[in-house]
Amino acid sequence: MVYGVIGTGALGGFYGSRLARSGQEVHFLLHRDVDYVRAHGLHVDSCDGSFHLDKVNAYSSTTDMPKCDVVLVGLKTTNNHLLAQLLPPLLRPDTVVVLIQNGIGVEEDVQKMFPGQPLVAGLAFICCSKTEPGRVNHQCYGSINFGNYSCQDKAVFHAIIDDFAHAGIQCAEVEYLEARWRKAVWNIPFNGMTVVLHTQTDLLLKHPSTRELIYTIMMEVITAARHLGVTGLDQSFADKMMDMTDNMTPYSPSMKLDYDLHRPMEINYIYLRPLQIATSAGCAMPHVDALAKMLEFMSVE
Amino acid sequence: MVYGVIGTGALGGFYGSRLARSGQEVHFLLHRDVDYVRAHGLHVDSCDGSFHLDKVNAYSSTTDMPKCDVVLVGLKTTNNHLLAQLLPPLLRPDTVVVLIQNGIGVEEDVQKMFPGQPLVAGLAFICCSKTEPGRVNHQCYGSINFGNYSCQDKAVFHAIIDDFAHAGIQCAEVEYLEARWRKAVWNIPFNGMTVVLHTQTDLLLKHPSTRELIYTIMMEVITAARHLGVTGLDQSFADKMMDMTDNMTPYSPSMKLDYDLHRPMEINYIYLRPLQIATSAGCAMPHVDALAKMLEFMSVE
Repeated sequence: MVYGVIGTGALGGFYGSRLARSGQEVHFLLHRDVDYVRAHGLHVDSCDGSFHLDKVNAYSSTTDMPKCDVVLVGLKTTNNHLLAQLLPPLLRPDTVVVLIQNGIGVEEDVQKMFPGQPLVAGLAFICCSKTEPGRVNHQCYGSINFGNYSCQDKAVFHAIIDDFAHAGIQCAEVEYLEARWRKAVWNIPFNGMTVVLHTQTDLLLKHPSTRELIYTIMMEVITAARHLGVTGLDQSFADKMMDMTDNMTPYSPSMKLDYDLHRPMEINYIYLRPLQIATSAGCAMPHVDALAKMLEFMSVE
Repeated sequence: MVYGVIGTGALGGFYGSRLARSGQEVHFLLHRDVDYVRAHGLHVDSCDGSFHLDKVNAYSSTTDMPKCDVVLVGLKTTNNHLLAQLLPPLLRPDTVVVLIQNGIGVEEDVQKMFPGQPLVAGLAFICCSKTEPGRVNHQCYGSINFGNYSCQDKAVFHAIIDDFAHAGIQCAEVEYLEARWRKAVWNIPFNGMTVVLHTQTDLLLKHPSTRELIYTIMMEVITAARHLGVTGLDQSFADKMMDMTDNMTPYSPSMKLDYDLHRPMEINYIYLRPLQIATSAGCAMPHVDALAKMLEFMSVE
């Protein structure tokens, strides 16, 4: 299958490079470093083994790219309005668009822009950044789960998973809605609270009051998810997320990095859309609401 | 009547000096500037007319002070544990203790320390600070309302109000519980949010998301108060507080000043006690709870 990567940042760069290394045909849309990558290729510093791609199909515009079987979208959701212009040159009616993005409601909005297009959610669990032109730094983890949102052709959906597995990436099929909410259980408390309180995960868990607030927020998210029909989430998952984070090295989530670097924060899909969806279903998340409104105040958009 | 002032900071200094100027006998407990005040007196820079008290009864310990008919407590509530030692030398069984302090639950706790002692709540509406030794700076407002918590002798309670009125201070009798909650409607949103978001009242009201959050918090406080039997508070009071704050000059509430100066914040009586009292009565205040827990994280105590 022919792969396109829209947004060759940390995630698009990492997964796209791994697919290319494993022999897949991959076409990368780049932004600032397109000339650098054409000349020098892409380098991946990785805890799983560093490698270098000498020859990279690098583009500065999707109008120059071929039609693809699969498009991996690695943009921040704050740039999703750009998809209306970026995506069409790559799409056939059966091209599968994999949204490797954060938050809830992403597929719903992209589907409105591209009715009938097969969409898949990609949920990445990875610590990865792009610090220099043509250079991805993969620190730890690396798995990705795929939730089928609207891909009727199950064979193609599974072929994508097989390609990732063949590239040595830990991956699995998951139920779309549950997977999105499952990830939100961690993302919603830790992204916002590290921003509002100018801190990291470890200090939030060390102080009894923020530890309690984080747990309360996790339970609000779990309650909302169950209200929306997600049956596989309950209090034990909050306990598990607390344990996991206790055992992580002190961490700044993506929104904290965005805030520190004066980049737009993904408040819409990590906070506002889940709040809207939960509220519409009759389930308030008041602690989440308070946090979201503080983040909006702090937003530099 | 003989007045004592415990905590001659901004509030104790201002009201005590006004009473002294009007001819009352007032005895002041001072801390760092006791020698300065003994030598130079107390100066009040005031929007209502500045004045100077040449001769001040200034003490460094309450053990040197006479028994009083009325004691005005102007301490921050974060120092209320000191009252167990400070107050007894001034008290006869009928001495009225006026707590000119912020928050909810103050009288309940002081009454436990001094069972049977007549207590009165003093609710000050004043912009006032003590910036230099022996010098109080009164910028604007200045009224004080008195709520009778446990003063059986109504004649004495009214005599105190008369003394303040005679000193030219705008004052009134109010219903104790309603007055405390009424003040909390403003204090709870603005104190905490100016601290957590490192800002002032005007910017919080200008941004639509924090404006909405402030209103939501006001309504949580009003709903809790009504739940506790306070009938005189409803949505119109939240509207009135929004209007009033819209028309104020940009303002840093006392907790923001405390935070900026690395002093302890009055989180217990402004947040935790109202939350406990409301929760015990079956009325959650989740937005207030989120804010309180963030403040505890930021506390330097």
